[in-house]
Amino acid sequence: MAIEEKLAELCIILPEVAAPVGSYVPVRLTGNLAFVSGMLPTAGGQVKQTGHVGEGVTTQEAYVLARICAINGLAALKRAIGTLDRVKGIAMVQGFVQTTSDYAEAPKVINGASDLLVALFGDAGRHARFAVGVASLPMNAPVEVAFIAEIMP
Amino acid sequence: MAIEEKLAELCIILPEVAAPVGSYVPVRLTGNLAFVSGMLPTAGGQVKQTGHVGEGVTTQEAYVLARICAINGLAALKRAIGTLDRVKGIAMVQGFVQTTSDYAEAPKVINGASDLLVALFGDAGRHARFAVGVASLPMNAPVEVAFIAEIMP
Amino acid sequence: MAIEEKLAELCIILPEVAAPVGSYVPVRLTGNLAFVSGMLPTAGGQVKQTGHVGEGVTTQEAYVLARICAINGLAALKRAIGTLDRVKGIAMVQGFVQTTSDYAEAPKVINGASDLLVALFGDAGRHARFAVGVASLPMNAPVEVAFIAEIMP
Repeated sequence: MAIEEKLAELCIILPEVAAPVGSYVPVRLTGNLAFVSGMLPTAGGQVKQTGHVGEGVTTQEAYVLARICAINGLAALKRAIGTLDRVKGIAMVQGFVQTTSDYAEAPKVINGASDLLVALFGDAGRHARFAVGVASLPMNAPVEVAFIAEIMP
Repeated sequence: MAIEEKLAELCIILPEVAAPVGSYVPVRLTGNLAFVSGMLPTAGGQVKQTGHVGEGVTTQEAYVLARICAINGLAALKRAIGTLDRVKGIAMVQGFVQTTSDYAEAPKVINGASDLLVALFGDAGRHARFAVGVASLPMNAPVEVAFIAEIMP
Repeated sequence: MAIEEKLAELCIILPEVAAPVGSYVPVRLTGNLAFVSGMLPTAGGQVKQTGHVGEGVTTQEAYVLARICAINGLAALKRAIGTLDRVKGIAMVQGFVQTTSDYAEAPKVINGASDLLVALFGDAGRHARFAVGVASLPMNAPVEVAFIAEIMP
């Protein structure tokens, strides 16, 4: 199934690509790799929810936010390469969760991004990953997700 | 010397590969690169020691834990590519240490992983690296180490 | 314009390459990629300023420190590949800011590195990026910047 159809089946509408919050670009292509910048759970330029996971933000809420990060990354990737059908697979997800120091469930949060990528791309979407809890994130966002995709020429 | 012999010489027995603590895979191959997921210092599914370095966990203890992370990553890499003799070199180590905010010795901790990779692969094991102190890690682990290896076709 | 001339125009003198603060190398080449290790804002082996951004260190001070990190990375890269004219572009910047938990401006800090790379390499310097706030950094440095460059054969 083409990825566009799969997106529709998953009821995902790719948003407008948010302007980067700094002097970088959302996606950089080099060889067969696409580096997708750290994406925040924004819609219309606003972070959908703010705060630290483990204090104000629950794991389940942050899971949903991580999914939004991944969708924002896919929107940026589509704009960069024309169509997501050119995605050969996802190589690596870099997941950052804004947490208190006693929080231990970052993987459950970043699963929000990973589950979506696997649902969309199937086995080709299975990726290596790190998930860590950081002191602070831009715009007080609970989650930031970057990833590296493998692209067909 | 073949890497398997070198492992024996270093008295390292590669463990069973732990199931990922989320919806990702331990190793993802793309082109000549192998992305190895963030590994925790686990044995038998349990983290060997928990807590923050600089408070409860010492730098020396965390050094040993970082070494275990690297060994777990090598076990996963071997399973993915058949034999570690196919490793051409280590490109990058991504080291995360769970620390208090006044801790400044993350490099000494991540040396536990780096020293092992250099002992095993020699000059080919010399890698670029970052080492940072994060607020929290999965399972309250003191260390998480991901790395990128270069693989022979 | 050749990069060396551009450096002069920007009044940048590349420093001596600092010895790594651990058992790794400043730059690792693999295929067409150069992985540049996490660089600290050091001069002569000393971090120029210490402390957390949001408490003692201002965003503007940290911006300047991030620029120094990038310059240190470029010095290491030049030593590894002979001349910066071999840099085809910058693929990814990995930016870590040592922050309090309520700081939300990590992108403004890492812009210090990003702005320099774009000033130096032009459009080829436009890169993907993540910028996160971490609990602690080596040597109590306010910033650490790693990057991945694309190199001409």
